[in-house]
Amino acid sequence: MAPFLTNERGVLLAYDQGLEHGPSKDFNDKSVDPNYILEIAEKGKFTGIIFQKGVAEKYYNGKVPLIVKVNGKTSLPKGEPLATQNCSVKYAKDLGAKAVGYTIYLGSAHENVMLHEFGQIQQEAHELGLAAIAWIYPRGEAVPNDSTEEVVAYAARAGLEAGADAVKIKYTGDPESFRWAVTSAGAAKVFMSGGPKAPTDEAFLKQVKGVIDAGGSGLAVGRNVWQHDRPLEMAAALRQVIFNNQTVESALKNFSR
Amino acid sequence: MAPFLTNERGVLLAYDQGLEHGPSKDFNDKSVDPNYILEIAEKGKFTGIIFQKGVAEKYYNGKVPLIVKVNGKTSLPKGEPLATQNCSVKYAKDLGAKAVGYTIYLGSAHENVMLHEFGQIQQEAHELGLAAIAWIYPRGEAVPNDSTEEVVAYAARAGLEAGADAVKIKYTGDPESFRWAVTSAGAAKVFMSGGPKAPTDEAFLKQVKGVIDAGGSGLAVGRNVWQHDRPLEMAAALRQVIFNNQTVESALKNFSR
Amino acid sequence: MAPFLTNERGVLLAYDQGLEHGPSKDFNDKSVDPNYILEIAEKGKFTGIIFQKGVAEKYYNGKVPLIVKVNGKTSLPKGEPLATQNCSVKYAKDLGAKAVGYTIYLGSAHENVMLHEFGQIQQEAHELGLAAIAWIYPRGEAVPNDSTEEVVAYAARAGLEAGADAVKIKYTGDPESFRWAVTSAGAAKVFMSGGPKAPTDEAFLKQVKGVIDAGGSGLAVGRNVWQHDRPLEMAAALRQVIFNNQTVESALKNFSR
Amino acid sequence: MAPFLTNERGVLLAYDQGLEHGPSKDFNDKSVDPNYILEIAEKGKFTGIIFQKGVAEKYYNGKVPLIVKVNGKTSLPKGEPLATQNCSVKYAKDLGAKAVGYTIYLGSAHENVMLHEFGQIQQEAHELGLAAIAWIYPRGEAVPNDSTEEVVAYAARAGLEAGADAVKIKYTGDPESFRWAVTSAGAAKVFMSGGPKAPTDEAFLKQVKGVIDAGGSGLAVGRNVWQHDRPLEMAAALRQVIFNNQTVESALKNFSR
Amino acid sequence: MAPFLTNERGVLLAYDQGLEHGPSKDFNDKSVDPNYILEIAEKGKFTGIIFQKGVAEKYYNGKVPLIVKVNGKTSLPKGEPLATQNCSVKYAKDLGAKAVGYTIYLGSAHENVMLHEFGQIQQEAHELGLAAIAWIYPRGEAVPNDSTEEVVAYAARAGLEAGADAVKIKYTGDPESFRWAVTSAGAAKVFMSGGPKAPTDEAFLKQVKGVIDAGGSGLAVGRNVWQHDRPLEMAAALRQVIFNNQTVESALKNFSR
Repeated sequence: MAPFLTNERGVLLAYDQGLEHGPSKDFNDKSVDPNYILEIAEKGKFTGIIFQKGVAEKYYNGKVPLIVKVNGKTSLPKGEPLATQNCSVKYAKDLGAKAVGYTIYLGSAHENVMLHEFGQIQQEAHELGLAAIAWIYPRGEAVPNDSTEEVVAYAARAGLEAGADAVKIKYTGDPESFRWAVTSAGAAKVFMSGGPKAPTDEAFLKQVKGVIDAGGSGLAVGRNVWQHDRPLEMAAALRQVIFNNQTVESALKNFSR
Repeated sequence: MAPFLTNERGVLLAYDQGLEHGPSKDFNDKSVDPNYILEIAEKGKFTGIIFQKGVAEKYYNGKVPLIVKVNGKTSLPKGEPLATQNCSVKYAKDLGAKAVGYTIYLGSAHENVMLHEFGQIQQEAHELGLAAIAWIYPRGEAVPNDSTEEVVAYAARAGLEAGADAVKIKYTGDPESFRWAVTSAGAAKVFMSGGPKAPTDEAFLKQVKGVIDAGGSGLAVGRNVWQHDRPLEMAAALRQVIFNNQTVESALKNFSR
Repeated sequence: MAPFLTNERGVLLAYDQGLEHGPSKDFNDKSVDPNYILEIAEKGKFTGIIFQKGVAEKYYNGKVPLIVKVNGKTSLPKGEPLATQNCSVKYAKDLGAKAVGYTIYLGSAHENVMLHEFGQIQQEAHELGLAAIAWIYPRGEAVPNDSTEEVVAYAARAGLEAGADAVKIKYTGDPESFRWAVTSAGAAKVFMSGGPKAPTDEAFLKQVKGVIDAGGSGLAVGRNVWQHDRPLEMAAALRQVIFNNQTVESALKNFSR
Repeated sequence: MAPFLTNERGVLLAYDQGLEHGPSKDFNDKSVDPNYILEIAEKGKFTGIIFQKGVAEKYYNGKVPLIVKVNGKTSLPKGEPLATQNCSVKYAKDLGAKAVGYTIYLGSAHENVMLHEFGQIQQEAHELGLAAIAWIYPRGEAVPNDSTEEVVAYAARAGLEAGADAVKIKYTGDPESFRWAVTSAGAAKVFMSGGPKAPTDEAFLKQVKGVIDAGGSGLAVGRNVWQHDRPLEMAAALRQVIFNNQTVESALKNFSR
Repeated sequence: MAPFLTNERGVLLAYDQGLEHGPSKDFNDKSVDPNYILEIAEKGKFTGIIFQKGVAEKYYNGKVPLIVKVNGKTSLPKGEPLATQNCSVKYAKDLGAKAVGYTIYLGSAHENVMLHEFGQIQQEAHELGLAAIAWIYPRGEAVPNDSTEEVVAYAARAGLEAGADAVKIKYTGDPESFRWAVTSAGAAKVFMSGGPKAPTDEAFLKQVKGVIDAGGSGLAVGRNVWQHDRPLEMAAALRQVIFNNQTVESALKNFSR
């Protein structure tokens, strides 16, 4: 994970929502354009950017370290969630990636398919010198609540056991409970999944602060940055919380300038 | 997509309806013959022609750039739509193809199978120097309406994310809403799917004009050309709308000659 | 298909009923023996003989061009029909085959499996210099009637699109309607599937005559020959209808000798 | 099949019941030990011995020709029967096998999986110089009775068509009906499946005699030998019936010594 | 199994519960850390340690022989149990493993998938010089009770037949019945599965003593050691029972020191 970390922490700009949720749900005229995202990533000093292969192939400019997401699904199908590999690790590397990302829907009736595929991807990634990052999302009929301390810690641990160099997991709601997830992840870095746009900047930054306080490495954030009308200020605020251990109060001052 | 474009626009002649719908539904004594289609493609100055492997192998004459469709299904089976690969990219290339086409039924319960296969096909195509074109058709129980702005834009975007060089999608009904699909497709070229024979030439050309006005690259058309009793006049009309930015009114004059 | 044709027509002796229907349904003490069939094939001047791999391996004598059927199923299982590959193309070639045969149950819920496999088999066959023949049988819950003009023409066309050099399809009942199937098959040769033993020789020969009149290339016949008590006379009659364009009346004279 | 035959007949000692039925159902303190079976096989002059890979690897001593069974299942799961490959042909050969065995549950909803796998195994076996033996057991909801003349003959024939060098099938109950199965198997050798311990030695030997009278090559027997308290006498009796065409009456004298 | 045995017996420290049950169910602040486990393994003189690939890759220090578990599942999904391969044998070897472990849910509707995969893994392991250990857990709707003498012996035997060098199975409750499982396993070593934390040390050690009395090789234990507040004393007690044939009474004295 070294290419994505500064003093063992990182802030990754996620941009695969076009596949996962569709443009109409998440994008506006500005954020629909990958170049806009690339600009934010560079100017906002993100330590990594996350694209699906198609966006990477047609837009990536090499300025911010690249993570290619190698599976994905749309939000359309019902039933137990399943996303299978859509990009080889070698192809991701050829596109400039320093890491691959893969979603495992833990608890899905198809869980075994994804644990199996991730096993192969992780091996190939390490053999080619890339990091392997697991998005671990407990989901499906067997998972009534995906944000409890127990479930989030299970996700974190499953990522470590499966060989992930970093896991992207949901926030539990408070640093005390999230600490258990971080502890469970052991040597795997923990990144909070940014999730949908938070109601207020303060609310969002408090989550991020909670992740850092709990020992997490940072977050992978999309909508809370590029849906923001002041994305670079949000990026600056995030950097202060993540890399400089500043308070939320202090970080919020970016928006008053 | 360069082999199929003139000034970034193109008009492709689609002819895989024999597999998708059956000859009795779409063909008459003339259009059942691939040679008739090849003649229209050449004389009508189409920038590309779309065949399944069997028709390509037995009829293709090298005069118009070839796209081999590498999956397909009949209209017979019920249930969630699924079409899997029936032709390797290498074989398509050996048949003379400059691109491969592949249908993804977005939202189908089998969506992941097609996203997975397209991922492999796209990589192999690019490694062999071919373009990869995605027919993206949201369909199945989870998709009550496949022509809304939101659904069509989702299709367009999924194509970009999956690595398609061009997407073939349905028209939304008006250029304003279709523009969002074109924007969502980003660097992927957008071709309207011609669909069933339109009630009038004017109605059809208005759709095409709408695509162009919305920033699309053109269309892939079958039945509205080769089911037409004056296919070359229709081809001329399409060229005027697509390449010369002429009005529908002006293009319709082809039929009055 | 050249090895199997005389003046573009052919008559193939089919003998995979042991797997498809079981010996008790179709065989008697004579016809159960592949050597009896080989003798009929040779003396009856058939232009091809169709075996499953096991019968080919243990009995084939090289006297009549061989087609190895590379999938098959028994009549026992209920549910949507599916037959998957049981013999590689290379192995078929090593057994002496000049062509491979493969059944596609069009309209089956498993249609895509068979279209996918046939795609691979067709490619491998052509790369090794063998013809690829598709048995195309619309079947399953979605196909209430497999002998209508529309359905049979769909089968024929699907074979062409899939890359078959020849298709084996059911007869529609009259040459007028069957002609549409032949037209739809285009450059793929059309062979009627012989089907169960016909009530009278005349009835059967009329079907064959109808195929020829409709432009078909001939037929693949099993039970109507080797269940016949005078198989060589039936073979002679078939040759006269198929290769010499004789009438049914004239051909029937073989039986009065 | 030459390594397993003496004058075209053979008697094979089967010992995969530990996997198929479990030790508690079929074994006692003596028969649970593979060395006990190996001793019977050698002293009883069996022409072949049948093991799963694990037993072969840890116990086989090279004294009696070896058949490695390359699929298997336990008796625990309900539903349509399916057993898939658990040992490669190459590995079986490395363990000393001169043949591989594979069970096809004909009529099962998964029939196609097993016909497909057996096709690959048969080819690899022949390429490596091993015989391919098919256990053909019609079973599943579609098969109400697996011992009728029609069903057993179907099994025998399917084995021939699939390329088996020998088939292992159930006995029909009398030599007249079993003869049809033998005839249907053609050039494939027919071995009766020994089945559960018969009520009397006479009853069992009568079955074996019936197989021989019907033209069969012998039997593959397990429980009726190694569950017997005088297994070598049973072996001697079997040899007399199988190789010396002796009567059941005469063979039974082995037990009165 | 030689690397894991001392005088044909062994005691293995299992630590894949993070994946199988989740950290919140089984771990506390100490046991959540793989380094704590490694320390216990070394100081407690365990003859082997069992990790999933991720923990092995990030923590393993080479001091105790390593078994990499190459499949696994979480406890979240309902339905018939299935765990598929998540680590190649070669990768396990590269991580330092001297053996691979694989769980087969005998009796599951997916049993055949696991028997098939284990067959490949066992072969690859032996070709690379590793032992292959099978966790055999009868489970699923078809298995109402997984601890009866009959079911446990079936598990043991299936492991032998499948080629396992050692099996990890549940205890039946008493040495008399467990002896039948040991006998059924034949040349495959038998390790008891430690299971959940026992109510008392005495109860647990009695089970272990029963295994040894029944002829077993030892046990694979996790929670009963590293959930214990005196894990090294428990390790010492286990060693006395397993390697020195001491009584439970005598072994319990470790805790009174």
